[in-house]
Amino acid sequence: MTERLVVVGGDAGGMSAAARARRRVPDTAALEIVAFERGSFTSYSACGIPYFVGDMVHDVHDLVARSPEEHRQRGIDVRIHHEVVEVDLDRRTVRVRDLDGGGEEDHGFDQLVLATGASPLRPRLEGIDAAGVYGVQTLADGVAVRRAVDDDKPTRAVVVGSGYVGLELAEALVMRGVHVSLVERLPQPMPTLDPDVGELVGDALRTAGVHLHTGEAVTGFDVSGDGRVRGVVTGARTLPCDLVVLGLGVRPNGTVAAAAGIGVGETGGVKTDAAMASTAAGVWAAGDCVETWHRVSQRPVAIALGTHANKQGRVVGINATGGDATFPGVIGTAVSKICAYEVARTGLTEAEAAAAGFDAVATTITATTRAGYYPGAEEITVKLVVEQRSGRVLGGQIVGREGAAKRIDVLAAAVWHEMTAEELIGLDVGYAPPFSPLWDPVLVAARRAADEGAG
Amino acid sequence: MTERLVVVGGDAGGMSAAARARRRVPDTAALEIVAFERGSFTSYSACGIPYFVGDMVHDVHDLVARSPEEHRQRGIDVRIHHEVVEVDLDRRTVRVRDLDGGGEEDHGFDQLVLATGASPLRPRLEGIDAAGVYGVQTLADGVAVRRAVDDDKPTRAVVVGSGYVGLELAEALVMRGVHVSLVERLPQPMPTLDPDVGELVGDALRTAGVHLHTGEAVTGFDVSGDGRVRGVVTGARTLPCDLVVLGLGVRPNGTVAAAAGIGVGETGGVKTDAAMASTAAGVWAAGDCVETWHRVSQRPVAIALGTHANKQGRVVGINATGGDATFPGVIGTAVSKICAYEVARTGLTEAEAAAAGFDAVATTITATTRAGYYPGAEEITVKLVVEQRSGRVLGGQIVGREGAAKRIDVLAAAVWHEMTAEELIGLDVGYAPPFSPLWDPVLVAARRAADEGAG
Repeated sequence: MTERLVVVGGDAGGMSAAARARRRVPDTAALEIVAFERGSFTSYSACGIPYFVGDMVHDVHDLVARSPEEHRQRGIDVRIHHEVVEVDLDRRTVRVRDLDGGGEEDHGFDQLVLATGASPLRPRLEGIDAAGVYGVQTLADGVAVRRAVDDDKPTRAVVVGSGYVGLELAEALVMRGVHVSLVERLPQPMPTLDPDVGELVGDALRTAGVHLHTGEAVTGFDVSGDGRVRGVVTGARTLPCDLVVLGLGVRPNGTVAAAAGIGVGETGGVKTDAAMASTAAGVWAAGDCVETWHRVSQRPVAIALGTHANKQGRVVGINATGGDATFPGVIGTAVSKICAYEVARTGLTEAEAAAAGFDAVATTITATTRAGYYPGAEEITVKLVVEQRSGRVLGGQIVGREGAAKRIDVLAAAVWHEMTAEELIGLDVGYAPPFSPLWDPVLVAARRAADEGAG
Repeated sequence: MTERLVVVGGDAGGMSAAARARRRVPDTAALEIVAFERGSFTSYSACGIPYFVGDMVHDVHDLVARSPEEHRQRGIDVRIHHEVVEVDLDRRTVRVRDLDGGGEEDHGFDQLVLATGASPLRPRLEGIDAAGVYGVQTLADGVAVRRAVDDDKPTRAVVVGSGYVGLELAEALVMRGVHVSLVERLPQPMPTLDPDVGELVGDALRTAGVHLHTGEAVTGFDVSGDGRVRGVVTGARTLPCDLVVLGLGVRPNGTVAAAAGIGVGETGGVKTDAAMASTAAGVWAAGDCVETWHRVSQRPVAIALGTHANKQGRVVGINATGGDATFPGVIGTAVSKICAYEVARTGLTEAEAAAAGFDAVATTITATTRAGYYPGAEEITVKLVVEQRSGRVLGGQIVGREGAAKRIDVLAAAVWHEMTAEELIGLDVGYAPPFSPLWDPVLVAARRAADEGAG
């Protein structure tokens, strides 16, 4: 008998689950795999959208790792413009709506993969639905923003929110010659960083030509008579503009799951265990719709990031076909590039550490990315958050120029393995003058933390 | 009563021990610190010599982290041109020779730090002592080679040996416009890598314009009537030249220690425990003269590298002043740049794994340093050596272009913590298109290794 695997959503998480399942069970008579995607694209890099908008990537198809047609050639029946509107766990069916007007029909499954993604936050502010106001989450959103820049040639844009996506889009628009204002409710840009590190990012943004308005909440949008946005209203001012991009973060799409009685957590994401199983038998979840586990804070988190989606999809593809794999959770590692600056974080910030109940101290150092005497040595700032009692490294933040950001990976490994600052000093990382001072900046930070007596 | 700390040798290990001890005990009346260095320099970056020879670094003093005078200003009595020729453990004295003709005298100590460094290997071949044949280990050696290039304007140079120093000097000489031949006894360049990875380095060298002669042992040197080298003789040919640089590796200077009855291991290095204590009470060791521990092979190793020297010096400085620190050993991490190529390794190669008794398998992948669609994405090759039975990552090797080499750090952390390939897949490393494909190349290698079924 043919086993039926149904994937709800064509994002990276769902499609990598499908691809992995197909690879493990190549026989389409043994395993039928159908994926329903309400949009037009599958397996694309949402993280690449800012570079498409900024015209560093010229063809939107370069952001698509595998098109629906390519999936079909590999034995995965992808149906775009089809939205799953309901899951019936008792009957083991999904109700699918054909968005091209073909009505609804039920489709049976044995194993179900929820990959419904996340949606950008859109606060109910006056004028937010005006023409010219864009959220950016799907590739279709990215295409729309790009077209707006190409066709309408806006002179002034306002980016609302200064998370990664907001910052990267601000840079992209600056690169397209647009005057860009960035509005952030909090006193610092990039609220996923501690305020002192966020300030360094603020400096980078200003250097890049972004007009930064922190500590200003958007209260509404000024809309012209023809329904187009012409200004962003904050508590302090109205910023005239002809393009608005919302970068206020995203929220997992858990509605269909919740309606079916599948567990949805406080983050709005589908609850998963280490096997990426939902609370319902034979129902798995992967990608931006998921609530996963933060290994340091020991709290549920929903983090929309393509790399997690792919890893989770792999785990689901293995487990939904009788294998045994685990997704170990996350520690909040993220990197971003803002013009000439690189920004990275992992583990907990000071504020997050306090919120998670740690008695933490912080150490910040500046060093160079290469030996000081080697051409091209650039400044790098490393901040470590360390548990006072034990010296355990709880998190790290990095801001610097070329060569800075990916140093977060070794810090991520240190956080992952609960190394103390003193232990981190001893880690045998690579040294040669073109790549590092004698003490790698990460080790300099660890040494300072150890010298300051944590642990 | 004043405690007397004597440092034998002014290299990075010894001087960082002295600096750390002084920092812990600032009072010179409580702790006297004297360092004897037979050369003229202290605390310099031997790893920087190739860049000085290549004129990427213009002033030799840029390679000196702290001069003798700067150490003296910080309460460390550095005496250059003074060589310790004998240690008397019973009388707690060292015999010091004044190399400027001042004779010998004894100097008492309570705590002794051996930092005698390492010496380049110079096989007893005919003509090796001819003018124009240089070893490169000390800064004085580097100054001599640089002067030879500046003043004698050699047209042809031969570098003997293709370890890191040999390769970096070959590049440096090419940059100075010299025709460079590189002779290596083994069939591949860079014998610290597996042959397949070494071949990639060979390609990089040829691309950079180095004339590579592998599988050729040097049998002697052709010397002109005035005593200058004019050719390097191998089993296959005579390579005409007016400059020879020996890059055959180094051997720890353990003679003074051994003569005093202090334990010296099979590597020729001073035996040390995790506290960097030698076998003699109150005698410590740091830097290139040391025999330390390889955490994966579980064997003693001597690895001359400034970063180890500094870490060991810190540990000695703490422990020799009543503190408690440990040096956890090494895993053989190394990085190097050869023109546009970056090379890195950590842990064990296939050959080393077999020699250490592991049943290991290897996986090699190629990927890109950034998302494939992001401008500047460069090729990177990652090889993982994995224990067959458990899937444990025993080592990694990387060759690629910009952005490749420092990825070795996260692999080093994985090796350090005995992660399996499957565990490494789950590690939360940084992803954004300017820095990495969705799957970091390191994770791609781990995924391939896990898929291939090790563990």
